[in-house]
Amino acid sequence: MPTYALVLAFDGTAYAGWQRQRRGTTIQALVEEALAPLEGAPVRAAGCGRTDAGVHARAFVASCRLTRPFDAAVVRRALNARLPADVRVVEARRVADDFHARFSATGKAYAYRIWNAEVGDPFETRYAWHVAPPLDVAAMREAAAAFVGRHDFRAFQSTGSGVATSVRTLWKASVTREGALVRLEVDGDGFLRHMVRAMTGTLVEVGLGRRPPEDTRAILESGQRAAAGTTAPPQGLVLEKVYYPEGLLAAAPDDPVTL
Amino acid sequence: MPTYALVLAFDGTAYAGWQRQRRGTTIQALVEEALAPLEGAPVRAAGCGRTDAGVHARAFVASCRLTRPFDAAVVRRALNARLPADVRVVEARRVADDFHARFSATGKAYAYRIWNAEVGDPFETRYAWHVAPPLDVAAMREAAAAFVGRHDFRAFQSTGSGVATSVRTLWKASVTREGALVRLEVDGDGFLRHMVRAMTGTLVEVGLGRRPPEDTRAILESGQRAAAGTTAPPQGLVLEKVYYPEGLLAAAPDDPVTL
Repeated sequence: MPTYALVLAFDGTAYAGWQRQRRGTTIQALVEEALAPLEGAPVRAAGCGRTDAGVHARAFVASCRLTRPFDAAVVRRALNARLPADVRVVEARRVADDFHARFSATGKAYAYRIWNAEVGDPFETRYAWHVAPPLDVAAMREAAAAFVGRHDFRAFQSTGSGVATSVRTLWKASVTREGALVRLEVDGDGFLRHMVRAMTGTLVEVGLGRRPPEDTRAILESGQRAAAGTTAPPQGLVLEKVYYPEGLLAAAPDDPVTL
Repeated sequence: MPTYALVLAFDGTAYAGWQRQRRGTTIQALVEEALAPLEGAPVRAAGCGRTDAGVHARAFVASCRLTRPFDAAVVRRALNARLPADVRVVEARRVADDFHARFSATGKAYAYRIWNAEVGDPFETRYAWHVAPPLDVAAMREAAAAFVGRHDFRAFQSTGSGVATSVRTLWKASVTREGALVRLEVDGDGFLRHMVRAMTGTLVEVGLGRRPPEDTRAILESGQRAAAGTTAPPQGLVLEKVYYPEGLLAAAPDDPVTL
C-alpha cells in the first residue's frame, strides 16, 4: 500500500504529546483525524516516538498508509488545511512500503533550550527553561562529554519505563551559549523516557556549581536514577531531527531526500 | 517625587493592549496592580502609547512616581515577582522628575514580522503574519522608501482616531528577508493608530504584485484611507524601542543610559 512519511513541526504547549491517551488532545489524534477524509475511513499514523506533553518538534516523523497513491504535496496540503496552525506538516513524502516512522528510525537529535538571565524573556516562556543564576557553560560542556559514546543510561530514565535495554549510543552532547540562550544538543541512536530532560537537569546542577563536572560519569556508572539531577521542564525540549536509512526515504529514485 | 521609567517586554497575545479598558486584561492594569504594594496605595503608570490587543513589545516604556526613593533594582524585582511570566520589567530606572513615558518620548521603532512560506511555522503563529505566496521584497523596499520623511499619514490611520495632526516624520522604513522571515522596520517621531499595520498591509499587496511600488506615494498624497491596503493582523507587530532625550533618562549623572 502507498506509504507516506509526514514531517511535522509543532508547538507542543497545548498538547498532551504525540501518543493518543484518554486525557488531553494529542498530536496523533489530530493527524489521524486529518488523514481520515483522504482515505474515507480511519487511518492509523505511527509516530517516531512518544514526546511528552509540552515538548516541541521541528521535524517529528509519522508514517501512514493510504489505499490511493496520492501525490505527496496533496497529502501535505490536505492535512495542513485541517490541522490547527500550531501543528504543521512541513513535508509529506512517498516512501518505501516497509518504512515505519518508529521501527525504521536509526537515531534522533534533540535540543534543550535554557534562558539564562536574571529576567526571563516573555517570548521564551513557552520554549525555554528560565534559569536565573549564571550558568558555567564550560563546566556543563565538560560534564556533557561523559554522555558521548555507548552507555547504560538507566540513571537518566524515568522509573517504570519498562524498555528492554537502557543502553544507548550518543554521537554528540554539546552545550553552547549565545547571549542568554544556553543550548544543549544531543544526537544518538535512541533516547529513554525523560532522558534528555534528566540529563539537562543534571547539567544545570553542574552549571550552578552544585555538582562537579565529573558527576555525570559517576551517575552513569551508578545506574541509579536518584543519583542524577531533577528532570528539566518539558517546554525547553525540541525534537530537531529523526534519522533514517536513505534507501527507505525514497519510493522512487528521483524523489528528493531532505528528511 | 521619585520618578521611575520601566522598560517592559511583553508577549501581547493574551492581552487587550496597554491601556486600561472595560473588557480584557491590560498590561497597564497588571503593572499598576504590581506597583500598588510598593506605595501602599494605588499608583498610576503612564505608558509611552497605547498598543493594540495582540501586539508585542521588546521595550515598551512606562513611567510612574513613588513616594519613597526605592532602589531601581528593587522596583524591577518587586514588579517581576508579581507580574505574569509573559510581561517582564527588563529594566527600572530613576529618571528626572519631569520624565513622562508618553510626553517625553521623541520617537519609536517598530518591527513587523511576516512569515513568507507556503507552510506556516508553528513557532511563529503568535509572532508573525503568515503570507503564503512569495513576496517580492525588492518591490516592497521600493514602495517603503516613499514613507521616509515628513508626510501626512492620514491615509494610514484608522478612521475616527481624532488626533490633532496626522503629519509624522519617519527616519527609516526598511524591508529585509532572512529565510522565510520578511521584516519591516520603521523608526519615526510618532505613529498614528494602526499606522504600521496599514503600511504593512499595503506593502504586502505590493509584494504580491497586486499594486505597483509607486502606489505608496500616491496613497500618501491622496490622504484617503480607502486608497491604502488592508490592516495587517496585530501579532506581527513589535514595539522595539522608544527614544527619549538623554537628559531625562538619568536622575543622577552616574546612572547608565541603556533605554
